[in-house]
Amino acid sequence: MESIDHNGEKRQVAIGIVGPGLIGKTLLSQLALQTDRLREEWGLELQVFGVTNSQWMLLSATPISLSSWQTALESQDTEASLDSFTYHFATSPVADRVIIDCTASAAVPCHYTKWLSLGIHVITPNKRLGSGPLADYLAVKEAQRHYHAHFMAEGTVGAGLPVLSTLQSMINTGDKVAKIEGVFSGTLSFIFNNFGPGRPFSDVVGKAKAAGYTEPDPREDLSGMDVARKVVILARECGMQIELEDVAVESLVPEPLQSTSSVLDFMDQLPQFDADMEARASEAAEAGNKLVYVGLVDVAAGKCTVSLQSYPADHAFAQLSGSDNIIAFTTRRYSQQPLMIRGPGAGAEVTAAGVFGDLLQVAQSLGA
Amino acid sequence: MESIDHNGEKRQVAIGIVGPGLIGKTLLSQLALQTDRLREEWGLELQVFGVTNSQWMLLSATPISLSSWQTALESQDTEASLDSFTYHFATSPVADRVIIDCTASAAVPCHYTKWLSLGIHVITPNKRLGSGPLADYLAVKEAQRHYHAHFMAEGTVGAGLPVLSTLQSMINTGDKVAKIEGVFSGTLSFIFNNFGPGRPFSDVVGKAKAAGYTEPDPREDLSGMDVARKVVILARECGMQIELEDVAVESLVPEPLQSTSSVLDFMDQLPQFDADMEARASEAAEAGNKLVYVGLVDVAAGKCTVSLQSYPADHAFAQLSGSDNIIAFTTRRYSQQPLMIRGPGAGAEVTAAGVFGDLLQVAQSLGA
Repeated sequence: MESIDHNGEKRQVAIGIVGPGLIGKTLLSQLALQTDRLREEWGLELQVFGVTNSQWMLLSATPISLSSWQTALESQDTEASLDSFTYHFATSPVADRVIIDCTASAAVPCHYTKWLSLGIHVITPNKRLGSGPLADYLAVKEAQRHYHAHFMAEGTVGAGLPVLSTLQSMINTGDKVAKIEGVFSGTLSFIFNNFGPGRPFSDVVGKAKAAGYTEPDPREDLSGMDVARKVVILARECGMQIELEDVAVESLVPEPLQSTSSVLDFMDQLPQFDADMEARASEAAEAGNKLVYVGLVDVAAGKCTVSLQSYPADHAFAQLSGSDNIIAFTTRRYSQQPLMIRGPGAGAEVTAAGVFGDLLQVAQSLGA
Repeated sequence: MESIDHNGEKRQVAIGIVGPGLIGKTLLSQLALQTDRLREEWGLELQVFGVTNSQWMLLSATPISLSSWQTALESQDTEASLDSFTYHFATSPVADRVIIDCTASAAVPCHYTKWLSLGIHVITPNKRLGSGPLADYLAVKEAQRHYHAHFMAEGTVGAGLPVLSTLQSMINTGDKVAKIEGVFSGTLSFIFNNFGPGRPFSDVVGKAKAAGYTEPDPREDLSGMDVARKVVILARECGMQIELEDVAVESLVPEPLQSTSSVLDFMDQLPQFDADMEARASEAAEAGNKLVYVGLVDVAAGKCTVSLQSYPADHAFAQLSGSDNIIAFTTRRYSQQPLMIRGPGAGAEVTAAGVFGDLLQVAQSLGA
C-alpha cells in the first residue's frame, strides 16, 4: 500500500525507542536504510525523537540522526526516566507518536496503558505484557480500544514470521480457531533437531550452549517457560482468558537440578539424566517417530500445554532443521489441512523486521 | 488493531462487488456474519451499495441487505454496465469506497486505473491484472501511488494464505528477496501427492477431475499457465519487469494432445503417454525423490520458471498432502533457512477470506 499525499505533504511519525539493545539497535539500522525510500514512495517521515536505555536517555526536539544516535546517547548525562520520556512524547508537536519497547523487562509494560491513553501507539517484541497478569493485558486491550491507539506485538511470537497478523486476520474475517500448535523455541528446535538415540542429550545441550543458541543459563530454555509465554500470547489473542500458571508445562530440567546454584554445576550434572532422555528417544525411534518440544493452544478444549511429544517422521513438526519455528493453525476454514508457517523464529534481524513491519502497519493506519 | 472513534462516530466504507459468483457470494456471507462485530468493536460500517454480474446490476443509494441481495439482484431489470457502476460509486456521498472484482475476467481490470483515479480502492483475487500486460500493471501501480488509493490482491496467490502481505512486509522493511519457490496449484499438488510409480498418471488426473479438483478441462491446470500467472504476480511484486511469456513453462499436456478438440478425447488419449510419466516417477523414486510441480521466481538470476522437479523425500516440497500449496521465501534475512507458508491455497471460503483480509487492511488504513 504505497501512497503519497495529494499535496505532496509528508506524514510524520515520531518514534521513541526504549531499550536500544541488540534488537533495538538492529531496528534503528533497518530504519536508517529505509527512511529515504519511505519518504519518497509513501510520503512517510519516520523520525526518532527519543532513545533510552536503563541508565541514560537521549531526548530531542528535532529528529535524532540514525547514524550517530549511539555516540550521542553514550555522551548523555540525562539519567533515564520513563516518566520524563513519556512527558517528552506526550507534549510532542507531532500528532502521530509510537513508542517501541525493545526491552525484555517486566517494568516497561507498566507504562503501556498510560502511553495508549495519551494517544501514543505501542509496539513491542517484549513478551511480558502478553504473558503477564491477565488484568494488565486486558487493561491494555481496553485502552487500545478506548483511546484509538494501536498495540502491536508481532515480534513476540516467531520473531519476523507473520504469526500474530495471520491469526488476527483469521479472527477478524470470522474464522474460528480450533487449535494452534507448534515449535515456538528456536533453541529447543535446534536441540531436538540434533538429538536422537545414541547422542547424549547433555552433549547436544552443551553444543547448543557453546554455539550461542541457548540463554547463558540453558535452564531458561529447557524449563519451557519461554514457550509457555508464547502459548499464552496466542491463547489470549484467541479470546482465552488465561494466566501463565494455567499452562501445563513439561520442564526438561530434571527435578533435582532445578535448584542447582550454578550453570556450571547444572551442566556438570546433566549427563546423569541422559539415560532418561535416551529411553524416550529410543522409544520414539522404534515407532518411527521423533521427539519434538511442542506448545499447544487448544481453543476448543480450553486448555494450553507445553510438552515433549513424539511425532511420525513424515509429520511437518518432525521435519524441521536448524532452529526453525513452525506454527500450525487448525480452524473452521483450515480444518482438513492446517495453515502452517515455518522458518527461523529468532535472531535480531528477523525480530527487528517483525517490529518494523508493525510500525509500517501503524503508519498505514494513520493514512501513510 | 481495534478502535472506536473518540466521538463514537462510525467510519463508513461503501463497497461494490463485481461478479457475485462463488467467491463473491462467499465474501458477502462472510461480511454478513462480521458486520455487527466490526461496527461495535472497530466503529466500522462496511456497507454494500452495488452488486453486478455480467448481465444485471443492483445499485442502491442505501446499504443493500446482505441477506436478500441475491433475490434483489435476480429481480433486477437494470442491465449490467461497468460505466454506470463506476458512476454510481464516483458520485457516492460516502468518502471511502472500495470496488471488489471477484471475476476471473480480463475485461474488468481495464477499469482499475479509472477507479483508483477516482479515489476508489480496488481489491481482487483476479490474476488477470497482475499477470497481464506489464504496461497495464505498471499503470495501476502508478495510479495507486498518484491518487492515494489502494490496490490489493492477496487472494491471487495461495488464496487466504498470507503470501503477498508477507512478501510486501519483507520488501518494505528492507529485506532483499533472492528467490520465491513453491507449489502454487492446489490441483497439481493433489495430482502429484497421489502420483507415483505404479499408478498411471492418466488415472490420477481422471480421479482429480472426478473429484472436482481440476478445471472442467484439466488441460487448463496441466498446462501450468495458472502457476505461471502466480509466478508473474510474485516476480513483479519483487520489482521484476516481466511478462507472462517470459516464464519458461513446462506443460504437462503431451504435445500431440494440446490441440485435441474435446475434453473427452483428451482424457481418452492421455493413457498413451503414461509411460513417459511413469519413467520420470520411477527415476525419481530410485533416487529417493518425489516429483513436484514447482514455480520459481529467481530474483537474483532474473528469471522465472514453472517445471516438474524431483525433490528428496525429506524436503518440505515433497511432504505435502491434499491440495496444499507451499511457498518458500529465500531472502537476505532468511538465507540459511527459508520462511515457508503452507496450507490449502484454493477454495471459496479461504479465497474470500483473503479478500476480506485485504478489505480490513484498507479499512484500517482509512483510520478504522
